[in-house]
Amino acid sequence: MSRQLKLGAVLMGVGGPGDHDTWRHPEIPGDASVDIRWYAERARQAEAALFDLVFIVDSQFITPDSPPHYLNRLEPLTLLSALAVSTTNIGLVGTLTTSYNSPFNLARRLGSLDLISGGRAGWNVVATGDGGTAANYSRDEHFDYAARYGRALESVRVCQGLWDSYEDDAFPRDVATGRFVDPDKQHRLDHVGEHFSVRGPLNISRSKQGRPVIFQAGDSEEGRDLGASVGEGIFTHAPTVEAGVAFARDIKDRARAKGRNENEIVIMPGVTPWIADTDAEARAAEEHFRNGRDFAKNLAQFGRPFGWHDFGRYDLDAPFPDLGDLGKDSFRTQAERIKQVARDERLTLRQTVQRFTAATPAPFVGTPRTVADRIQEWFEAGALDGLNIHITVPSVFARFTDEVLPILRERGVVRDRYEADTLRGNLGLPIPENVHTAARRRTPVPA
Amino acid sequence: MSRQLKLGAVLMGVGGPGDHDTWRHPEIPGDASVDIRWYAERARQAEAALFDLVFIVDSQFITPDSPPHYLNRLEPLTLLSALAVSTTNIGLVGTLTTSYNSPFNLARRLGSLDLISGGRAGWNVVATGDGGTAANYSRDEHFDYAARYGRALESVRVCQGLWDSYEDDAFPRDVATGRFVDPDKQHRLDHVGEHFSVRGPLNISRSKQGRPVIFQAGDSEEGRDLGASVGEGIFTHAPTVEAGVAFARDIKDRARAKGRNENEIVIMPGVTPWIADTDAEARAAEEHFRNGRDFAKNLAQFGRPFGWHDFGRYDLDAPFPDLGDLGKDSFRTQAERIKQVARDERLTLRQTVQRFTAATPAPFVGTPRTVADRIQEWFEAGALDGLNIHITVPSVFARFTDEVLPILRERGVVRDRYEADTLRGNLGLPIPENVHTAARRRTPVPA
Repeated sequence: MSRQLKLGAVLMGVGGPGDHDTWRHPEIPGDASVDIRWYAERARQAEAALFDLVFIVDSQFITPDSPPHYLNRLEPLTLLSALAVSTTNIGLVGTLTTSYNSPFNLARRLGSLDLISGGRAGWNVVATGDGGTAANYSRDEHFDYAARYGRALESVRVCQGLWDSYEDDAFPRDVATGRFVDPDKQHRLDHVGEHFSVRGPLNISRSKQGRPVIFQAGDSEEGRDLGASVGEGIFTHAPTVEAGVAFARDIKDRARAKGRNENEIVIMPGVTPWIADTDAEARAAEEHFRNGRDFAKNLAQFGRPFGWHDFGRYDLDAPFPDLGDLGKDSFRTQAERIKQVARDERLTLRQTVQRFTAATPAPFVGTPRTVADRIQEWFEAGALDGLNIHITVPSVFARFTDEVLPILRERGVVRDRYEADTLRGNLGLPIPENVHTAARRRTPVPA
Repeated sequence: MSRQLKLGAVLMGVGGPGDHDTWRHPEIPGDASVDIRWYAERARQAEAALFDLVFIVDSQFITPDSPPHYLNRLEPLTLLSALAVSTTNIGLVGTLTTSYNSPFNLARRLGSLDLISGGRAGWNVVATGDGGTAANYSRDEHFDYAARYGRALESVRVCQGLWDSYEDDAFPRDVATGRFVDPDKQHRLDHVGEHFSVRGPLNISRSKQGRPVIFQAGDSEEGRDLGASVGEGIFTHAPTVEAGVAFARDIKDRARAKGRNENEIVIMPGVTPWIADTDAEARAAEEHFRNGRDFAKNLAQFGRPFGWHDFGRYDLDAPFPDLGDLGKDSFRTQAERIKQVARDERLTLRQTVQRFTAATPAPFVGTPRTVADRIQEWFEAGALDGLNIHITVPSVFARFTDEVLPILRERGVVRDRYEADTLRGNLGLPIPENVHTAARRRTPVPA
């Protein structure tokens, strides 16, 4: 079968129609962000459209000015476990930080979700950009950039090791003899690393997909390196097809240099399609949304990469302020890029905010056929292996599933049935062999 | 309405028929301990019998000799979230340790479960007895006894504070004006304590039961003190009605001394009823089970309170060995009691193991009427407010729900319908007022 486009649905994400004002949309209950029925309905809507996965983002630091869906939200893994028993085939991907979770806990919780869902769990590994989170976890300061990414990589390796605590045939469960476990097939990890020491074994067996799928989204040098090292799915943003191709090439080159098979990495930019009966109508709606956002809210949101810095204190029409290294321990790459552009183009604060908070013109805008054409073009150019669709408003999402997808399906670009009931199976990723089984296979017992 | 007996169901607990050998029972799939369908069926069975709650125990340290259901099990909260959407009225109580979880994470996860379940979450607060757990969490040594209980109490207080981050009317969600949150009703915690500092606010609103219900099970001085300080449900073991009355009296006296209302504490011993068509038959089955356990497995299990000490190294028929203070950082109270009895009664190791691992003769043994009579007697004597029933084998549990409960229902001792769809509502516990709302009520805004 030829390569097919993969599809993710971002539940209660950002950047969709509404954004700060999503909750005011008549189709969306005001408390949707904490209503498990709302999530279950969206997940079933995505599953009916044969999506590969739903994706739950996260944040743990708020002020009264945070966007509404940040203020009150369910913890991603608790939420996904409820969705696991409300769905049958769709993958369940949640954001969990390695800065404020122990790897043993991460491995347990993700391993449990993987068993409960029958092999549909995925983990979006993040290092936490919001420095304010530290104060919720008994720390005066957030971990520095190097420590955050060091912990992230080490946490993933530890979890992968713990998920192999039991070989697949570790439980003979022989009722006649009373032999439940084969002790030779239970393994300690005995990890001692820079950030963690973890003995194991984990008290959870592997699911039928072997291990949860690792996702990653960072765009900094360190983020790309982490993605290339351990990411099996990469979430990103691609403003143009050229940028998408360059990003995908970079990640896959890095991965190959690390000895990985680049075909075992799925690149999935997050997008919001704008669909209308004519291209002009869709473009107008997209522009209206882009220009219609409230400046005060944009200004507050603009502070996020700088550790939610309060930009209300500066003169909006003076040159962009000198911020020193502000942002270095938050979303560093994004903060540095903003400072660079403001400096190079001699922008005022107001111009800088407008530049960076007015969402980039969306690439997938038009009639269903236009959007389908564009997606196919990007897919065939290698700018993406899949799309991560923001699906806040159900009827907007329905236009995508009911009008765009059938066109792509007819062209063979998207599936017409699930190939598998595991996330790995649908994403076309191999089931990793248990490391201990592999070692045993390589070193046969002498005759 | 007069006081009624509360009912909990311990899913995949210990001490039931089978225990080490539960998995060999023909009614129990070998992988039941990781099969979400098995748990969901048991939860629905308990809900059909109008139980107040299901309870999930936990452990995080295993060796190849650990009991089968310890070797491979789902993380309690991940499991309970899946059960939340598979049930409608029954409470969902999970064990989570305060030794190896941050209170902010605990508050988030429990708060999420409370919203997902519509106000049915409960938290069994434990300090972790198995010292070996430390090595899974980057620690050379387990926390000492004082630190463990200090962390436990402080964690509960922090979580309760975080759960009040939003007052109940904090979200006006006024579509016309665009006002989503009332910033005066979002509150930081700014906790700085001996073990934790936590700023808050938590990004989760309160459920309709206000806060998750706090359960506690420790029997040491420190454990009883913790239970009397914050426990709303107390899990315990009561070998005789007199011991049960004394324990309940002690907890309620301590709670009153701390300024609490003793009627807001529900004491629920864990029990396994043995039911047969005649009393003699039930007693014979219970004795057969009690005496039929494998000595080698008992010897391994006997080591647990001493930090899974290997007693296989001693002469079984020599006097009980001098262990010094072994067990002081594990299950200390239990370890000291064993040493004391062995010394006072001059027991050999074999005799001591037999004394403490042969399960105590079960108090609720006989025909359905005998068991119902006995339960009512204990309940009316004040030895218990409820029972926490181990329900490993479905048909054994069905005899309890279908034959014992109808007798108690006819006598008005147990409910004939759910009074509420929250855990607090069914347990008869009040909904705690938000502390900030209470402060506002006490200090009215000057006119």
